Amino acid sequence: MKIEKYQVDQHNDSLFSKHNNQFIFLKEQLGEQGINANDIVKQLEAFQVAIPSWALGTGGTRFGRFSGGGEPRNLEEKIEDVGLLHTLNRSSGSISLHIPWDIPSQAESVISLASSLDLTFDAVNSNTFQDQKDQELSYKFGSLSHVDKAVRKQAVDHNIEVIKYGKELGSKALSIWLSDGSCFPGQSNFVKSFQNTLESLQEIYAALPDDWKVFVEYKAYEPNFYSTVIQDWGSSLLFCQKLGAKADVLVDLGHHLPNANIEQIVATLMMEGRLAGFHFNDSKYGDDDLTVGSIRPYMLFLIFVELVEGMKRAGKGSDAFAWMIDASHNVKDPLEDLLQSVEAILLSYAQALLVDRNKLEQARQQNDVVLAQQILQNAFRTDVRPLVRESMRLSGGALDPIGLFRNLQVRSELMNERGRVTVATGL
Amino acid sequence: MKIEKYQVDQHNDSLFSKHNNQFIFLKEQLGEQGINANDIVKQLEAFQVAIPSWALGTGGTRFGRFSGGGEPRNLEEKIEDVGLLHTLNRSSGSISLHIPWDIPSQAESVISLASSLDLTFDAVNSNTFQDQKDQELSYKFGSLSHVDKAVRKQAVDHNIEVIKYGKELGSKALSIWLSDGSCFPGQSNFVKSFQNTLESLQEIYAALPDDWKVFVEYKAYEPNFYSTVIQDWGSSLLFCQKLGAKADVLVDLGHHLPNANIEQIVATLMMEGRLAGFHFNDSKYGDDDLTVGSIRPYMLFLIFVELVEGMKRAGKGSDAFAWMIDASHNVKDPLEDLLQSVEAILLSYAQALLVDRNKLEQARQQNDVVLAQQILQNAFRTDVRPLVRESMRLSGGALDPIGLFRNLQVRSELMNERGRVTVATGL
Amino acid sequence: MKIEKYQVDQHNDSLFSKHNNQFIFLKEQLGEQGINANDIVKQLEAFQVAIPSWALGTGGTRFGRFSGGGEPRNLEEKIEDVGLLHTLNRSSGSISLHIPWDIPSQAESVISLASSLDLTFDAVNSNTFQDQKDQELSYKFGSLSHVDKAVRKQAVDHNIEVIKYGKELGSKALSIWLSDGSCFPGQSNFVKSFQNTLESLQEIYAALPDDWKVFVEYKAYEPNFYSTVIQDWGSSLLFCQKLGAKADVLVDLGHHLPNANIEQIVATLMMEGRLAGFHFNDSKYGDDDLTVGSIRPYMLFLIFVELVEGMKRAGKGSDAFAWMIDASHNVKDPLEDLLQSVEAILLSYAQALLVDRNKLEQARQQNDVVLAQQILQNAFRTDVRPLVRESMRLSGGALDPIGLFRNLQVRSELMNERGRVTVATGL
Amino acid sequence: MKIEKYQVDQHNDSLFSKHNNQFIFLKEQLGEQGINANDIVKQLEAFQVAIPSWALGTGGTRFGRFSGGGEPRNLEEKIEDVGLLHTLNRSSGSISLHIPWDIPSQAESVISLASSLDLTFDAVNSNTFQDQKDQELSYKFGSLSHVDKAVRKQAVDHNIEVIKYGKELGSKALSIWLSDGSCFPGQSNFVKSFQNTLESLQEIYAALPDDWKVFVEYKAYEPNFYSTVIQDWGSSLLFCQKLGAKADVLVDLGHHLPNANIEQIVATLMMEGRLAGFHFNDSKYGDDDLTVGSIRPYMLFLIFVELVEGMKRAGKGSDAFAWMIDASHNVKDPLEDLLQSVEAILLSYAQALLVDRNKLEQARQQNDVVLAQQILQNAFRTDVRPLVRESMRLSGGALDPIGLFRNLQVRSELMNERGRVTVATGL
Repeated sequence: MKIEKYQVDQHNDSLFSKHNNQFIFLKEQLGEQGINANDIVKQLEAFQVAIPSWALGTGGTRFGRFSGGGEPRNLEEKIEDVGLLHTLNRSSGSISLHIPWDIPSQAESVISLASSLDLTFDAVNSNTFQDQKDQELSYKFGSLSHVDKAVRKQAVDHNIEVIKYGKELGSKALSIWLSDGSCFPGQSNFVKSFQNTLESLQEIYAALPDDWKVFVEYKAYEPNFYSTVIQDWGSSLLFCQKLGAKADVLVDLGHHLPNANIEQIVATLMMEGRLAGFHFNDSKYGDDDLTVGSIRPYMLFLIFVELVEGMKRAGKGSDAFAWMIDASHNVKDPLEDLLQSVEAILLSYAQALLVDRNKLEQARQQNDVVLAQQILQNAFRTDVRPLVRESMRLSGGALDPIGLFRNLQVRSELMNERGRVTVATGL
Repeated sequence: MKIEKYQVDQHNDSLFSKHNNQFIFLKEQLGEQGINANDIVKQLEAFQVAIPSWALGTGGTRFGRFSGGGEPRNLEEKIEDVGLLHTLNRSSGSISLHIPWDIPSQAESVISLASSLDLTFDAVNSNTFQDQKDQELSYKFGSLSHVDKAVRKQAVDHNIEVIKYGKELGSKALSIWLSDGSCFPGQSNFVKSFQNTLESLQEIYAALPDDWKVFVEYKAYEPNFYSTVIQDWGSSLLFCQKLGAKADVLVDLGHHLPNANIEQIVATLMMEGRLAGFHFNDSKYGDDDLTVGSIRPYMLFLIFVELVEGMKRAGKGSDAFAWMIDASHNVKDPLEDLLQSVEAILLSYAQALLVDRNKLEQARQQNDVVLAQQILQNAFRTDVRPLVRESMRLSGGALDPIGLFRNLQVRSELMNERGRVTVATGL
Repeated sequence: MKIEKYQVDQHNDSLFSKHNNQFIFLKEQLGEQGINANDIVKQLEAFQVAIPSWALGTGGTRFGRFSGGGEPRNLEEKIEDVGLLHTLNRSSGSISLHIPWDIPSQAESVISLASSLDLTFDAVNSNTFQDQKDQELSYKFGSLSHVDKAVRKQAVDHNIEVIKYGKELGSKALSIWLSDGSCFPGQSNFVKSFQNTLESLQEIYAALPDDWKVFVEYKAYEPNFYSTVIQDWGSSLLFCQKLGAKADVLVDLGHHLPNANIEQIVATLMMEGRLAGFHFNDSKYGDDDLTVGSIRPYMLFLIFVELVEGMKRAGKGSDAFAWMIDASHNVKDPLEDLLQSVEAILLSYAQALLVDRNKLEQARQQNDVVLAQQILQNAFRTDVRPLVRESMRLSGGALDPIGLFRNLQVRSELMNERGRVTVATGL
Repeated sequence: MKIEKYQVDQHNDSLFSKHNNQFIFLKEQLGEQGINANDIVKQLEAFQVAIPSWALGTGGTRFGRFSGGGEPRNLEEKIEDVGLLHTLNRSSGSISLHIPWDIPSQAESVISLASSLDLTFDAVNSNTFQDQKDQELSYKFGSLSHVDKAVRKQAVDHNIEVIKYGKELGSKALSIWLSDGSCFPGQSNFVKSFQNTLESLQEIYAALPDDWKVFVEYKAYEPNFYSTVIQDWGSSLLFCQKLGAKADVLVDLGHHLPNANIEQIVATLMMEGRLAGFHFNDSKYGDDDLTVGSIRPYMLFLIFVELVEGMKRAGKGSDAFAWMIDASHNVKDPLEDLLQSVEAILLSYAQALLVDRNKLEQARQQNDVVLAQQILQNAFRTDVRPLVRESMRLSGGALDPIGLFRNLQVRSELMNERGRVTVATGL
């Protein structure tokens, strides 16, 4: 299925007058504060969030999975789905593949399909947390950190193969989430696990093309429930320091211990020049993988406040980082969930761009805590939806992506094409 | 010090045009959604938040306390401070006394002072978590739950005395936060502690005037770090069930274990007709007692969504519940902090009033999770500041209470009157 | 496969002398403290822990499942496995079935098989957290709490059917873990969900035989990550109060928010006469379902301290409660894991039986916190393994169940019989 | 007050026979496992835990402080108290001073007093989390990280002064716990705070004598409740890396987010050669500062398992690290609490020394998780109290330090000497 330009245009025409009224009013209000709304809209237009290939299907928990229908049955259909998203919001212009779930057997045709939908290929992801059919050695007790050199080698080789696939598609980064760890005290030797992992990562690092990066992700726990080899940003940074300049730390919002101050971690990693990017989601209890912004929108805003400041300090644009959605769509239509996710990200980014940095630094300099809080809250309490809508409109997307998705009955159409009981690969 | 009406009027005049422009625009926008802005403004006007007497001084932690200046030195000055707040926002029309910090030795003159400032007396609070000078028996190992009947009796008597003070002032409720518990496994017998506490509470309950309520507050931990007698809403409700219809559960936002779903607790307590009211604050780690709305504003909104629904279901207005701020102002001017607090509460209330209940129930009925989330987020993302400002303006308060507080240099004035090194009683 | 009595005897003979030496020494030591070791051994012998049918296979997480081999392929083989355990430790004398994973199509032969292995049938468990093949209505959005009456009815009918199966087998209780809840704010109406659930539970309750109980389990979160209908002991108790005397609260150690004081909850429930029993496991982060005692053995001991006291107060024996293991064996042989679990439970029980209750109450009465702690620690620090071994020996089990399991190469034998790639039903 | 050698001897004589019986039996049992009990006893004898000067008084919470009696009124009496402890357990041979609470105005006499009690001076601690009387600039908004250079300088100077005091006493390390951070989002600029702190630490580092170390402690939160400059081990390590080889990371057990795997952090820091030492305490909720070993003794054991392995790997003895108790004695006699603390530490150390490292590594190499767990549990379940008692006996201490403390009525004696209402400096 494809959404045509005229469909988007018709949709926008019907909403334009109301939207424009709101946008003009907001623009004036911001103007009085010395903020140029158009500049912000431009920055929003430039912000692109990658969609992971596995997020296009219904997710589940260890207790079960309730699939929806019309899920993509292969890589081509996944790319098609991302194409639909990008047509609607013009902010989802890349896809992040997970190997071996999405082996692009025919790179050329895949690239051509993606290009036709205005999509590029973001970081490629390896997977050594599951055993694949016909896999020689099991990852039950680890992969890159395994006590058995042969298992480590198999896992290293897999990562190198993933790089190979990525090169063919034009990716520029390998993203590694290592689930290795232990479930019980005594099970693993922390130091040996670290050293084994380092050795494995060094072999992978050596296979990286010159213009590539490797992203080292951390996670506090799960699927291992006692220890995880790369358990926090400190561990991740330590590995990156030992690996070299092409290794950066990847932050996933759900991968922290309760109450962690993630925005401070982000600031520190940017200070060190070691932030690779983000996996967006939200959570209340653990790595719940809920829609980003659905539980703690103010925290998301605070993270963007740091990102905006860090980018400015480093003189970098938002395209210098890898932004990806990493959530599990258990009870929502995956495509609608992804549209909500991108919207929430852009709203937070817009709010962060509203923050008056000079005033904020002055308030800090005077320890005027009340004012500093007020400056952030003023930005957060501003209704920035017109800015995000305007950015979508200007870049050719829909003013109300979910509304259009529903009006066009995209899901039923996909069900007709693909069937009601398809189950996409993934979690 | 007193803020005069003409000062508020001048302030409002200078801001009115800008405010009115925003209010009119929002009113139109809401009107298109079928929402009557004036109705909401009226409900905001009716919402009154009590100020606890001890919150007028700078708070601290066990590691120290950095006092500000101009803090109230006695009950009269505390009432005067609340009067200042109420003059500014017209939403802080009552004061909640803590005995023995604020013994109203001359009830009549205190009532007369309060009346002159348009203030009433909210729930009175007992304190058996500290020893007072010349106190016969120590609360080091508990009070209402103590193993020694004599200590329990002393604590019961104190509560009954607090009721007596409250009666003189026109209060209608006794609020009990019982910090009793244990610091080490083995220290206390859980069942005996419960039974002792129940017996003590029953004696206090028997001394309650007919038209009074007793509020039973719970807290997960602190100052006891192993167990707390009334540790959660389930314990609190159990006590209230055993006590009778005049006992209700008081919820303090900071008194929960990490990640608790407080809004669900609120809904359950309202369903049971057992919610007494709220102690507002915010927190990231424990009972941090930060400014309400400063950390998790979306959670505050979700709680108000339940409160609004519960009030409607019960056919009750917001005046049927006890709302109080219970935060610790460690790094902010206490009065400014309280103004920020009231504003945050009213903003959340306003957002909750925007929620389209019919649409929401329909979405729920169809398990349209995407739409249900969107309905809540639409309300939350609306910039409702003009509604809150309008409600303050209409009730005679300031459009920008903190702005006016600063313009009038209230704090320096208070310092001049009271001195730079005053330390109010409290934490 | 069957383990023969002579094999156990040979094993015990080889270890007896060493064991007896240790037991005699401990017996003397305890005797000096006024404790009769033989009495404790007798209470240990009487303690029976149910094995849930699904725990006999390798568990997994949402990220994957690494099956072992020789897992039971049907109900008969599951019973056979529990028989092996019981032969080894004589403390696992019952099995708890999960419907529809283990539908006993031919009750008589199943009962006969169980009897031959000296096993009985514990509480039967319903399952409405997954959809079964050919199920008419989906539980994707809930079961007993569902907004659609038809779905609720289907779930109620399933529970009534489970009772029917249980009756045939001689069970005396229905155990309900209701995973219903919501993943996003707004998704569900808390009060309606509660009321729907109550109505459903009342229908099930009405179908309970006179001599049956229904166990109402609670869980803080997962698989729903925003709210859970029966989220904590307070909710569970509220349901039980409304249902009637045959409804009790079931506690699963992993189903709490971080840092919850579970032993206090246990004490409170026993005080109210509402504790149904326990699901044993251990955890560090969430509902990790690790081997009981592997992470927080002191907490397990503290819980048993309350259980022992509560049983004494109520004049009940350990057979008045339902004890079950509820863990997920992801990286261990399930049978070995269950043997470790039962051992850990018995060790904690033994330690709790050592506590000098009179001294403890005296210390409490005098607020001698140091001594109270010491009394508990003295019990906990005592090496009670000889007591547990003696209890197993006397009841006909093995002195070292895991040692014998390994010596007899039980798992390879099972693999030979059943195959290397079997996957038992369950999580 | 002084405890005389003959008093210890009499006490030991009365308990020796029973103790020796237990020790001999355990020695035999261990011998059968190839463990030399005497070797372990020797290592226990060598283990010395520093006592912080402020821990000799009753602690409190922000809600109050219930002092005991007979608390030390000055530095000399604090040293005297540590002398009492050391006489009793011979494992508390050093004292750690906190400046400005314990300014040693006359170094020589203080040293002489300490020597006479066989005590040395451990790391000295600075304090910039409180304002002192007559202090020029306030630390309300930070110290080493403050936005104002003048405040930073004052805090740096204070630390340099602390070094000066330490040099006079023979200390070899400065221990810095920096409480700086922020209470509200927006309040501080994370990067500038880090840079300011780094600059301050560099100035302090420059003032370190050649043979000194600086310990950089981290803490997740409190007294700041939104962010802390040195919030976790990763931050601490980053500072140490930038400072140089004389800077190491200090771990306080209570300074972590919920559920943190502290033993893994310890292993990683030892791997990096960056572990300074430990502040021992225990906690259930936050930085509860309870008696070490009173809540999570198994975790304490697991930490010692890593410490023992790390020391062996590095070829270092326990004297190469700084061990200190850092708890708050709110409801216990401080001296008794410290005796319980040292005992718990030694018990954990003893258990960790029992672990069969070769077997453990073999089990790990074979991913025999069941066996690995069993090896640790075997050590933990062993009753090692006779080993600790023997070590105390051999080094001249008491077999039952708390028993002797009570028999000699030390506290009443101290009350007689010092008064019933003394309040020691500290928290």
